[in-house]
Amino acid sequence: MSFREDGEAALDWAARYLEEVGERPVLARVEPGELRARLPREPPEAAEPFAAVLADLDEVLMPGLTHWQSPRFFAYFATTGSEPGILAEFLAATLNQVGILWRTSPALQELEELTLDWLAQLLGLPEGLHGHIEDTASTSTLTALAAARGAAPGRRVVVCSEHAHSSVAKAARMLELELRTVPVDEAFRLRADILDLSGACAVVATIGTTSTTSVDPVPAVAEACERAGVWLHVDAAYAGAAAVCPELRHCFAGWERADSVVVNPHKWLFTPMDCSVLWSRRPDDLRRAFSLVPEYLRVHEDVVSLSEYAPPLGRRFRALKLWAVIRCHGREGLQRLIREHLRLAELFEGWVREEPGWSLCAPRPFSLVCFRLDASDEANEALLERVNASGEVFLSHTRLGGRYVLRLAVGSARTREADVRLAWDVLRREAASLSRPAAARR
Amino acid sequence: MSFREDGEAALDWAARYLEEVGERPVLARVEPGELRARLPREPPEAAEPFAAVLADLDEVLMPGLTHWQSPRFFAYFATTGSEPGILAEFLAATLNQVGILWRTSPALQELEELTLDWLAQLLGLPEGLHGHIEDTASTSTLTALAAARGAAPGRRVVVCSEHAHSSVAKAARMLELELRTVPVDEAFRLRADILDLSGACAVVATIGTTSTTSVDPVPAVAEACERAGVWLHVDAAYAGAAAVCPELRHCFAGWERADSVVVNPHKWLFTPMDCSVLWSRRPDDLRRAFSLVPEYLRVHEDVVSLSEYAPPLGRRFRALKLWAVIRCHGREGLQRLIREHLRLAELFEGWVREEPGWSLCAPRPFSLVCFRLDASDEANEALLERVNASGEVFLSHTRLGGRYVLRLAVGSARTREADVRLAWDVLRREAASLSRPAAARR
Repeated sequence: MSFREDGEAALDWAARYLEEVGERPVLARVEPGELRARLPREPPEAAEPFAAVLADLDEVLMPGLTHWQSPRFFAYFATTGSEPGILAEFLAATLNQVGILWRTSPALQELEELTLDWLAQLLGLPEGLHGHIEDTASTSTLTALAAARGAAPGRRVVVCSEHAHSSVAKAARMLELELRTVPVDEAFRLRADILDLSGACAVVATIGTTSTTSVDPVPAVAEACERAGVWLHVDAAYAGAAAVCPELRHCFAGWERADSVVVNPHKWLFTPMDCSVLWSRRPDDLRRAFSLVPEYLRVHEDVVSLSEYAPPLGRRFRALKLWAVIRCHGREGLQRLIREHLRLAELFEGWVREEPGWSLCAPRPFSLVCFRLDASDEANEALLERVNASGEVFLSHTRLGGRYVLRLAVGSARTREADVRLAWDVLRREAASLSRPAAARR
Repeated sequence: MSFREDGEAALDWAARYLEEVGERPVLARVEPGELRARLPREPPEAAEPFAAVLADLDEVLMPGLTHWQSPRFFAYFATTGSEPGILAEFLAATLNQVGILWRTSPALQELEELTLDWLAQLLGLPEGLHGHIEDTASTSTLTALAAARGAAPGRRVVVCSEHAHSSVAKAARMLELELRTVPVDEAFRLRADILDLSGACAVVATIGTTSTTSVDPVPAVAEACERAGVWLHVDAAYAGAAAVCPELRHCFAGWERADSVVVNPHKWLFTPMDCSVLWSRRPDDLRRAFSLVPEYLRVHEDVVSLSEYAPPLGRRFRALKLWAVIRCHGREGLQRLIREHLRLAELFEGWVREEPGWSLCAPRPFSLVCFRLDASDEANEALLERVNASGEVFLSHTRLGGRYVLRLAVGSARTREADVRLAWDVLRREAASLSRPAAARR
C-alpha cells in the first residue's frame, strides 16, 4: 500500500463528504442489524487495498451514518468537527504519541498543559488551574468525584439537581456514593435555598443542563460548599464554550470558585470527538486518587505525568486538535461562531413564540430552544418522528414537568440561517399533516 | 481556510514524517518546560492559517516528540500506528460520529460489534462474546472489575499477581476494593498453588505481563475461579494480538473460560492510539453496572447502546480504524508481522545469550527480551541512560527480584533486523565505554 496514494484518496473522500454532507438525510436510515448483515461475517485472510475500505464506506456504511457534521443536525447538542481539528487528528494518528510519562511525549504533555491554559484564558477562568483532557465529560466528572470522595473520608453523598447529566448518577454508582437530587425551580435551576449538604463530599452544579441548558445558581452553591467544606464540581460540558464571549460571562458567575470544572471542546468548541477538559484547583487531591507509578515507569525526571491525575495510564495526543482549533479560529473566530449560534437560536425562538399553536417550554440562556406543539405528548412524539424521518433535519426531545418537549440545538459551524428556517418549515409542515385525518395523509 | 489545500499539506507532512521518522533521535531531546517556554503564553486573537500549525510542529514541537513510530523504538511495548489505521482515524474525525444511542450512529455501533467479532475469530476466542472498545486497558479493566464487584455483593477483594499491571491497583482504588497480590514463581507467573480466593469478587490473570510478558497459569486460575464463583478477568492487553498465530495459542490456554478479556489493538495490532477491546461472557453484569438511560435519550428502538456497558456515555468511531487495519493486513499480514517480531526478539535473545558479560533475566514467550549487563544496578541504569541519550534507539527498564533489568520490546511494523542489530551494537558500545575510566570517556 502507498500511504501517499491512499492518503490522496482518503483526503478526496473526506473533502467530498464535507462538501456534500448537507445534502444527505441527517438521521441514519437503516433498521437495527441491517448493516451487520451486509458485511462479511468473517475477517479477510489476505490483505485488501485501502480503496476497498473507502468503497464500503460509500456502499455499505453511508446509510448507517447519522450526520453529526450536517448543517441540519439540531439534536442533543449539535457539534462540529472543524477542519483544523480533523487535520490535527490525522496528524495525531500519524505521530501516534502515547502519553504515559512526560518523557514518552514531552510535546503531548506540555502542549496539553499550554492549550488548556489558553482555553482557561479564553473562557475567563482563573489563572493557575490544573487542567488535563479526558475522553468525555462522563470520565471528567468521575475523576472529579473520585478525588472529592477521597478528600472527604466518611462523606458519601453527591448532591446535584434533578436536571444534572446522567453521568453524575453513573459516576456515583461506580464510586458507590449516594446521589441526592435537589428539585429545580420554574427555570429548571437547582434550588439552592433547599440545598442539604449533610454528609456530602461533592456538589455538581450545571451551567447548561442537558434538557434545557438551564444555569444552576453557582454563586449560592459555591457559598454553601465553601461553608461546608464540600467539593464543588461545575459541569459546563456544553455551555462552557460560550464563556469565550464576554457578554455571556454572567451565566458563568461563580464557576471560578469551583474545585473542578468540566468543559467539552468536542461539544461547542469545534473540536472532533473526543475532547473533554477537566480543570481543578485541587490537583493534589486528583493525584492522591490516581497516582500510582510502578517500577517499570520510574525515571529520574522531576515531572508529574498527566496520567497521575486521571483514570487511564496512557493518553493520546488530543491536545493537538484543540491547539489547532484555537489557533485556526482565534478568539475572534470562536466568538463569531458562538454569537451566530445564539442569534440563530433567538430567531427560531421568536418564530415559535409568534406562531399560534406552538409554545416555548424553557428559558433560553444559550443556543438550545425547548418548545412543543400545543397538543398531546403523543402528538409531539409523532411529530418528532415524522420530522426526523423526513431526513431534512434531526431534532431530539426531553421531558419537562412530565410533558414531552422538542429540542432544537444550534451548534454546528456549518449551520446557516436557511437551515434553521428549514427546520421550522419542516416542523410546521409535519404538524399540519399530523392534524389531518390519517386517511388523507396517505 | 481550504480543507483540500490544508489537507494536501497535512498529508505531505504526514507522509514525510513516516518516511523520515527512522532518522530522528528516538527519545525526545528537551528539558522539562522547554517546549512550553517556546510557545506563546496567550491564545491568538485572530485566526491563523493551518500552515502555521504545521510549521510549529516542525520548528517547536519536533524535538519534544518521542518517536513511537520509529523502527528503533524498543521501550515499554513498541507499537505501530499503521497506515490504514492512520487514514481511518482521519476519516473518523471527518465523520465525527458520536455514539450515544444506536441511532446516533448505527454504523459506529454495528461496525464495532462486527469488528470485535472478527477480532475474536482471529484470536481464537469463543463465539458469542460481547465486545466493546474502550480508550485504554485501564478503563477496560476498571469496567470489568466494576461489573465483578456488582455481581458479588459483599466480596471486596481483587486478586492478581504481583506482576499484574498497575491499572489493576488503580481500578481497585477507584472501586474501593482490596488488592491481594499473589507471589510469582521463578518465571514470574502467578502461583496458582497458593491462590487465596476468600472474599474475592475477581481475579486478574495476565497473559503477557508488563515487566517480562510472563504468562499466568490461566487454566488453573480459571478452575479455581469457577469453583469459587469468582469473576476471572484476563489481561492480554499486549500479548493478545499474538493469538492470531495458531502456533502461539498455547500461551492463551484457558482464556476462553474468562468472564472478561482485554486486548489492546493499539499495542501490538498496528492500530493507532487509542483502542482497547473488552470482551465479556457476562454482558448483563456490565449492563447492570453501567446502564442508565435518562429521558432525553429514551427512544423506541429495541437496541441496547454500547454506552450501557461502559463508563463513558459518548464514544467515537474507533472501530473504523480497527476494521481498516484488519482488512488492509488480513489475517496473513497480521501473522506475518507478529512472527517477524518473534523472530527478531529471538535473534536478539540469542546474541545476549552468547555474549560474555551479559545475561538474560526472564523467559521470553513473545517479543520482549529482558536482559542486563553483568554489573551493578547503577551500571545498568547508567548504560540505559547513555543508550537512550544516543538517540539511536530507545529501551526501557524494569526491576526483577530487586535487580535493575533492561527491556527490549520488538513490536513496530517498521522494525527490521538491522534496527535490532543496531540496538545490540549501541548497547555493547555504550557498555564498553562505561567500563572505561570516566576521564577517558570525555
